[in-house]
Amino acid sequence: MKHIAELCGVSVATVSKIVNRKDDDVKEETRLRVLKTVEEEGYFINTLARSMKTKNTKTLGLIVPDIKNAYYTDTSRGAEDMAVRKGYTLFLCNTDDSINKEISYLVKLMEKQVDGIIIIASMERDVEMEELLKINVPFAVLNSSTNYKDYAVKVQVDNYKGMYEGVEHLLGLGHKKIMYLQGETRLSFGEERFRGYKDALEKHGIAYDDNLVATTTFNVEGAYGYLRENGLVPETTAIMCGNDLMALGVLNWAKEECIDVPGDLSIIGYDDTIFSVISSPKITTVNQHCHLVGEILVKELLEKIDSEDFTQRMIPVASHLVVRESTGKPMIH
Amino acid sequence: MKHIAELCGVSVATVSKIVNRKDDDVKEETRLRVLKTVEEEGYFINTLARSMKTKNTKTLGLIVPDIKNAYYTDTSRGAEDMAVRKGYTLFLCNTDDSINKEISYLVKLMEKQVDGIIIIASMERDVEMEELLKINVPFAVLNSSTNYKDYAVKVQVDNYKGMYEGVEHLLGLGHKKIMYLQGETRLSFGEERFRGYKDALEKHGIAYDDNLVATTTFNVEGAYGYLRENGLVPETTAIMCGNDLMALGVLNWAKEECIDVPGDLSIIGYDDTIFSVISSPKITTVNQHCHLVGEILVKELLEKIDSEDFTQRMIPVASHLVVRESTGKPMIH
Repeated sequence: MKHIAELCGVSVATVSKIVNRKDDDVKEETRLRVLKTVEEEGYFINTLARSMKTKNTKTLGLIVPDIKNAYYTDTSRGAEDMAVRKGYTLFLCNTDDSINKEISYLVKLMEKQVDGIIIIASMERDVEMEELLKINVPFAVLNSSTNYKDYAVKVQVDNYKGMYEGVEHLLGLGHKKIMYLQGETRLSFGEERFRGYKDALEKHGIAYDDNLVATTTFNVEGAYGYLRENGLVPETTAIMCGNDLMALGVLNWAKEECIDVPGDLSIIGYDDTIFSVISSPKITTVNQHCHLVGEILVKELLEKIDSEDFTQRMIPVASHLVVRESTGKPMIH
Repeated sequence: MKHIAELCGVSVATVSKIVNRKDDDVKEETRLRVLKTVEEEGYFINTLARSMKTKNTKTLGLIVPDIKNAYYTDTSRGAEDMAVRKGYTLFLCNTDDSINKEISYLVKLMEKQVDGIIIIASMERDVEMEELLKINVPFAVLNSSTNYKDYAVKVQVDNYKGMYEGVEHLLGLGHKKIMYLQGETRLSFGEERFRGYKDALEKHGIAYDDNLVATTTFNVEGAYGYLRENGLVPETTAIMCGNDLMALGVLNWAKEECIDVPGDLSIIGYDDTIFSVISSPKITTVNQHCHLVGEILVKELLEKIDSEDFTQRMIPVASHLVVRESTGKPMIH
């Protein structure tokens, strides 16, 4: 260190900081110059040895099902922002909703010795393989959809309440026949939302009607295609959708059929993504605090890592309705 | 290996394959069981030693400026798809258009011993810092915006031609006053597109008019806000936009002003993202083959890595116009 310090014209303390990565207060230019000299002089910084000494590598892994889905990118940006704020870098891994890819990424991240992993589960699950895999670093999960043992942190978004609020908003406006066009999923949030829909109706004295619930894929084409093929059950005046893309699909279909939104038909999306504000009319939707959820996942996981307290922690996060332009009173026929 | 093979009831060859990560033909369940036994028996697979023997770690890093921008997520998905097809895993890093973050991720990826890195440059640059950083793994860059030395692969998208085709399409429809509402950038593609705009006009005998070019941010609010504040230069009948989000902003403004699209105003976007097909009308836009570009970046980089031939290679990729519903003949007043 003394040798390098002399060559670079900095103090030994500065070199030590850089080599041991306690260099938050060191200028980036100095850092690069020192690292370059270290290399030129034939020294080698042993990342692994160093990380064992300083306990961590200041890296995290984040596993998401689909980076093209705005819900996940919003969450990822929240996680990224918090990681950077805490001096960590975050490697993003895209599983394409495949359990094989998810497990393969978990293994790779462990090999790369990240300090912690955040798992947003893919839709495809495999209980046996999940239980077999030993995740040897602290990890956080979003919602309760995995069978990996001993998570350190779980963030649980209230899907029941989000759906309940949406349906209650429609009932309050005077709607009676409310369709639920849900997205296909094998994860538990689907069940929770369905209960929210049913309970809100029942609480307001409206009998649940199986014919008003349909399932399609979580995208524009799914919702558009479903309605184009099947149309609406007569007297339906409102639709709750599985996400904002599906709400857009309903909107496009309505435009083609000259159905006025919200005059003839009210539409509610889910996720409060960019799609709900760039459409015309802007879409009433359920906000799940994606960015905040990403922040919490990282913040809580880092607290666990720093404190070396690996008791499990569950953090509930509420959802809430954002009323925009796609919902209104039903027309009186 | 013999001991592990006996415990797991598999052949020594299978254990060897798994330990040396030549295990493409091994069942995932077997792989996990063997790895678990390796661990339980107190053995340790030295990733670094192994990677030096087998030459690589089968991991790549991909650095992108903003995972919330559909242009980058489409490219990332292309890269991811190709990486998985080739048996590699890909760590995504989001720089938020900051050169400090970009360099910090490059350093981390090198520390994690990825086999190669793909860099999509952030808008912020720092020639000195870039030249100082020695990237000690093969890397690929998209377009010519970085000062990192000795890239192995460069993919260059033809921004000039994309813009040229868009303007020519409008001229062919009979438009004479064509605005160019460009996005703010310090990267070279901005200059290339501007030349494409100018040259297309001049080739068709239309004098370039400075008043028809304006600059704002690459998003819905930027374009919407600009037009709300400044309106259109009189007799403007068409707008070329910096990307699809800006085209959406123009569309939203036009709706508010009761300007019919494409009747009164033709609009062309850029990037051919999901936004151009979910809007109404659907937006005519320039396709840059994002997904393909991601695939090429990974494919060419892996070829370089496998062949250990690190001469530089440049691959040009063309752009082309996709005509949808937002462009038409100008109204005759």
